[in-house]
Formats: sequence, structure tokens, C-alpha cells
Amino acid sequence: MLRSAEIIAIGSELLGPSRVDTNSLWLTGKLSDIGIEVQLKTVVGDDGARLEEAISDALKRADVVITTGGLGPTEDDITRGCTAKALGRELVYHEAIEATLRDRFRAWGREMPEINKRQAFVIDGAEILENPRGSAVGMLTSIGEKRVVNLPGPPRENQPMFTELVAPRLKELVGDVFVERREMKIVGMGESAVDEIAAPIYTSYENVQTSILFNRTEVELQIAARRDTQEEAAAVADELTRRLADAFGIAMFTTTGETMEAVVGRLLTERGETVAFAESCTGGLVSRRITEVPGSSVYFLEGLVAYSYQAKVRILGVRQETLDEFGAVSAECAREMAEGALRVSGATHAVSITGIAGPDGGTDEKPVGTVFFAYAGPSGTRSIKLILPGDRYLIRWRSSQAALDLLRRTLLRQ
Amino acid sequence: MLRSAEIIAIGSELLGPSRVDTNSLWLTGKLSDIGIEVQLKTVVGDDGARLEEAISDALKRADVVITTGGLGPTEDDITRGCTAKALGRELVYHEAIEATLRDRFRAWGREMPEINKRQAFVIDGAEILENPRGSAVGMLTSIGEKRVVNLPGPPRENQPMFTELVAPRLKELVGDVFVERREMKIVGMGESAVDEIAAPIYTSYENVQTSILFNRTEVELQIAARRDTQEEAAAVADELTRRLADAFGIAMFTTTGETMEAVVGRLLTERGETVAFAESCTGGLVSRRITEVPGSSVYFLEGLVAYSYQAKVRILGVRQETLDEFGAVSAECAREMAEGALRVSGATHAVSITGIAGPDGGTDEKPVGTVFFAYAGPSGTRSIKLILPGDRYLIRWRSSQAALDLLRRTLLRQ
Repeated sequence: MLRSAEIIAIGSELLGPSRVDTNSLWLTGKLSDIGIEVQLKTVVGDDGARLEEAISDALKRADVVITTGGLGPTEDDITRGCTAKALGRELVYHEAIEATLRDRFRAWGREMPEINKRQAFVIDGAEILENPRGSAVGMLTSIGEKRVVNLPGPPRENQPMFTELVAPRLKELVGDVFVERREMKIVGMGESAVDEIAAPIYTSYENVQTSILFNRTEVELQIAARRDTQEEAAAVADELTRRLADAFGIAMFTTTGETMEAVVGRLLTERGETVAFAESCTGGLVSRRITEVPGSSVYFLEGLVAYSYQAKVRILGVRQETLDEFGAVSAECAREMAEGALRVSGATHAVSITGIAGPDGGTDEKPVGTVFFAYAGPSGTRSIKLILPGDRYLIRWRSSQAALDLLRRTLLRQ
Repeated sequence: MLRSAEIIAIGSELLGPSRVDTNSLWLTGKLSDIGIEVQLKTVVGDDGARLEEAISDALKRADVVITTGGLGPTEDDITRGCTAKALGRELVYHEAIEATLRDRFRAWGREMPEINKRQAFVIDGAEILENPRGSAVGMLTSIGEKRVVNLPGPPRENQPMFTELVAPRLKELVGDVFVERREMKIVGMGESAVDEIAAPIYTSYENVQTSILFNRTEVELQIAARRDTQEEAAAVADELTRRLADAFGIAMFTTTGETMEAVVGRLLTERGETVAFAESCTGGLVSRRITEVPGSSVYFLEGLVAYSYQAKVRILGVRQETLDEFGAVSAECAREMAEGALRVSGATHAVSITGIAGPDGGTDEKPVGTVFFAYAGPSGTRSIKLILPGDRYLIRWRSSQAALDLLRRTLLRQ
């Protein structure tokens, strides 16, 4: 039974500083759907010896080896030859492929360049995968129980070829394996703190893959449960998700991969309530995040980015005495900003953010990263202070997350 | 002399269908700068045997092997152990690393979780690469003439570590190849239009690599001139940059890789002038971009995110009749928004944005992507209309770029 795969992307352009191998992402998802897990990916240039080695190494480790690219007619398209060598087979000429190519060129009103004749050579014994969308045929070679697949590089050629010709053949050999994935997100905790809580739970399940990923301000916890039926896989994934959600409580803000701004938007929509933001150090980032969600105009009324003292006084009604006595970066200023935003916007809730994102502006008393937040709404006004680590970009991002999370937690408590 | 490199990216999340290994792109460019070419890239999950094999295979082929990721404290962070095994070395405990970590956690007001102790183990004989930005130290191990480098995964940690600690050490071993890079950015043109103008110029130089990259709203034109001395490389890079700048004129907004918001900030600072924004469909994105630049409080006074009709009327003084007659997405509304922002903020310049970012809200007359911009300032008020392609995210991003570019062009003309 086929279980594991490796993908080899071929082409010097993929080794440059600006090109990403996106084929492998798509293939990884499609393989996973039929129960085959990609365990290694390689990108190799137009270097015959390295490619041959990469293919034979991959075949030692994995049940399925898929290459993309390097099937064109030019000198540096070396996939055919190197795959044949790695498998200890010959390349054989197929007249039918050449004939098809000649016809195709004629249909475009051109003669086939002689160089394209190379594309009529295929690995001895390989099944030929037709390519109505381009000049390079693909190949599927059986080596005992294992399979080697050569696909052309362009996504518009290799994706239909994989879907129509390769996936059904592999699926037959996989048997019945079903994978269910879930994506949870946790705020206010680090990667290791999350794992300390999560590991005792997920390690009690067999055939469940877990990955924990820290992403700027939140920890993503991904699980993939593999079972013999779709129902069993879903049941395990759901049970594990429920247990993890119980363990993390309010810190887990989604079990379905939503963004923080989508969660806040959903909570506001459910309640038919609205929000306004008064931002200083985040400079519009919170408003931008909340409006990233389609339909946010229903619950987002306005964002007031009051960067200067005058703007805080004039737009938000912060008192000059508050600024003189406590400064703009203070709990008092944050509270007046939130109350001002609530008053002028007429929203149900208002949240304010004022702090020092750096790199300059820090003092001994209020170092860079000092940020005050306030919430104002039906339950009154309250403020919190955080000292956030990181550079300007991260402090701003983390501040935006803390502001949205303050609103989320307040909504959940009401 | 070191010439070739392989990069191994580690982490199951990189084998998923949604995550691209972007570290290797950045590293490929930096290695090329110092004369080392990347010849193979591997992505491997949290699978010890495969990772160990990947490292030892890479070391057979390449002079430099760089790994990224897998240095965290959790169970599935396996880079330390597998690299040690592949090199036939032991892991040794460093008390100083643990002490530093404990201090760092205390400074954040937390106790170090016991699990983080793992991060105090390093490969015997490896040089320790300090990481002031995270908990995982890097390692640089010499194997004869070859070098194995383990970097943490997050770009914010591995990029400064590579630049400050790794690149200088590798550079010493490479010898005399000098590369000078320049990064130009062009707004308002597509990739192929840029290449039509640029190609006749850059192809007249030898040993100059060019790459043209379309990035949401701008085309990046990167050149890398390779010569035997730093002076020669710089002279060629400067001359080519000058010729390209002449060819593109005002459409090229930077020859030094600056962001659009940094260019606008520089122009305002030079003039001692200030700006305010009135945003509707961009929802704070323009304010957020302008305040991403350190020191922006000098020239950015305020941003008014007026999403609702009432907010436009109340905050910006847009007339209700204008909204009734022309709608919020109109040149008339954009003009009143910009003039209102100018008036209430007291800034030198004001720019407004109002449009339909979608996915809903489009009509036959004003389809999704219709965006009006207005500038108000010393030279009066003027508005422009654009129909921007893309999804919600891209329309918003392109709108923010067009707003900043409208301000840039106006400033350059005054």
C-alpha cells in the first residue's frame, strides 16, 4: 500500500532568489486528500548528477516519487534522461508521440522544430500520460510496488494531468485511508506553553499528526487524523478538537482556522452590535484588520487614528490636562480615547490603543513596547497595560492582536 | 574555497499544502551576494531519519549546508539532534545558554518552562550563534573545509543572525568575488511593460543578473553586478541604475529599495510638511502603511477611517446632499472627504479614498474595484478614478498604493 511521497521540483529558475516552487503545495494537498503524505521536497537545478541522485534517494525512502518540470525540448530539460538512469532503464523512441506533436504544430500553422523530437523519448515500460495542453507527455513508471511519476512543470499542464490520470491510479493502490484536518488558534501564550498543555492530550491518539506553529501573535495548532473511514477520521478529529478546546478555554479563539478579526466580526454580527477604534501607536492597523473581513461595514463604524496630541484632544475629546499630567501613553489617556470614540461614533463598543512602538520614544519608566489599551461600552470602561516584546513591526502587530482580543474576551463575557 | 550551498528547511508545516519555504529565497540571494551558489533545496518534515540523511547527503555534495527551523523547544523540533548525528558528534549542554534563557523569561515576567532547557544543548565543537530576538541559538560547525549552519526558522531571527554572524564568516572563506545589488521599484506598470523598457538597457552589460518581480502593486527590478573588485561592481551597478532611472522617470519611485510609504515620508520630512488621510474602503490601511515608518509622527497627523455614511458626514463634514445625489463612492464624496480631512486636521496635505473593495456592493455602473481618490492641499483639490482588478485584499492594497502615489506625484510636482 502506498503511504509516503516525495516531490522533486526541477529547474534552475527555482533556485533563484525570487521564484517559489508552488507546484509542490498543490500536489501535497491533492496527495494528502487520497491518503498519501509528502515527507520530503527537493528543488534541484539543471544538474544531471544531482537530479539522478535525488531521484534514486527518494525512491529508497518513499512509495511515490513525483517530479515536476524539466520535460521540455531544450538542452537543459533533463528529467527524462536522469529518471531513466536513476531507474536503470533505457529511453525508447515512440513514433506515435512524435506524430501527435507534428500534427499539433501543424494545427498551429507551424512545422515542428527538430529539437522537439526529444520529447518523443520515454522511459522504457513507462505508462505515457497524454498532455493535450502542452508538448511534453508525462510518465508513470512502476518499480515493484512503488511508483515514479514525471509531470511537466507548468501548473496548467501538470494539475489536470495529475487529477485526471495520476490520482485515480494512485488512489487504487492506497486503499481506504481518510484524513480529517482541524486548525485551532491560541492567543496570549507561547509555543512551548501551548505544547505543554496540548501534548498530554494529542499524544494519547494514534495516527494523528500534530503541528504547532507560532505566527507573530498566535499559536496555530493543526491536527490531521487518519482512519479507515471518513466518519471515523472526522469523529477522532472532532473529539480531539473538543478536548483541546476545553483545555485552552478562552485562550483558544478558533477551532476552524478563522482569523482573530473574523472571530470578532462574527461575535459582533451575532449580537447585532457595532464597534469603533481609537488608535495611536497602531496607526490604523486595527481598523485595517477588522475591515479585511468582507461585510465588516455592518459592524465597523469608524476608526480614528489620532497620532498627534491635538488630534487626540480635538477628535476624541481627550482632556489636555490628562495629556499634561499622565502623557499620551497612559491608562488615563487610553480610557479617555475609548470613551471619546464611543461617544462620537455612537457604536456599542469602543477600543483604544496608545503606546510606544519604537524604535525611539522609550523612557526608563515607559520603555519601547509599553502599550495601554482601554475598552469602553455597556459594561463600563476598563484599561490594561502590556509590555510587548519585538521590533516596531511586531509591537504594532501584537498591539492590534491584543486590542482585538480585549474586545473578543469582553464580548464573550457579556 | 567555498562555492556551493544547499539549504534544508525543516518543519512539518512546510510540507503542508499552505505554507511556502520563503527563508530559502532570502538566503539564496544573500549567499549569491557573497559568491556562493545554492544548488539544491530540501524541505523535510519532523522525521528524524529523513532529516539526518538529508543533512549527510547535502554535506557530501555541497561546501555549505544551511538548515532553517526545528530549533524550538517542543518535541518535534529535531534539528539539533539530527544534525549532531549526521556529523557524528554529540550534543553538549551549555549552562550559559540556559542561564540567558532564564533571565530572558524573567524579564518578560515569566518563569522559563522546563521544556526550554532543550535549547541549551548544542553540537559539540559548534560555534554558538547568539539570538537576541528569540529563544533558539544558532550553530556553525566546521567539518574540514566545509561549514554546516543551523538557523532558527522565523525570518526575524534567522535573517539578522545570518547577516551579522554567518555571512562575514563565510565571506572570508569565499575569496574575492564582489556583488553589488540595487533594487528599483516602479509603480503603475506591469511586469512585461517594465521588461520592454528595461531589457535593452540591462542586456548590454555582462555579469549582471537581473530579476523582475511583480509584487501586488509594484514591479521590483533587481540587479546584481558581479566583478573582481567592490569598486568595479559598484560602478557598474550605479551606472546601470542611473540609466534605468532615466528611462522610467517618475514611475520609478525608488532606486534604493525603499517602500512607497518611506518615499512619501522622506518627501514630507524634507519639506517640513504634514499629511492626514480620510479612508473609507481601505479601512485604515493607508494610515497603517504611513505609520509603519519609524518617525512618521513628525509628518502624519491623523487618519480618519469613516466607514459609515454618518461618520463621513460627522467627522469629515461631507454634505448629506452629496451622499444622496452621488453616493459615497463618487468623485464628489472623495473631494469633500479630502477637503474635510484637510480642514479638521490642519495638515498641509490630505488624501481620501472611497471605493468598492468587494466581494459585494458592486453595481453595473460602479463595479467592484471602482475607487475614487482625492487630493486636497496648497495646489487645490483634484480627484481621480481607478478601476482596480483583483480580490478584496488586492483592491484594498492597490488602493492604498494609488493613494500614496497620488501624494508622491503631487509633492514632486510642487
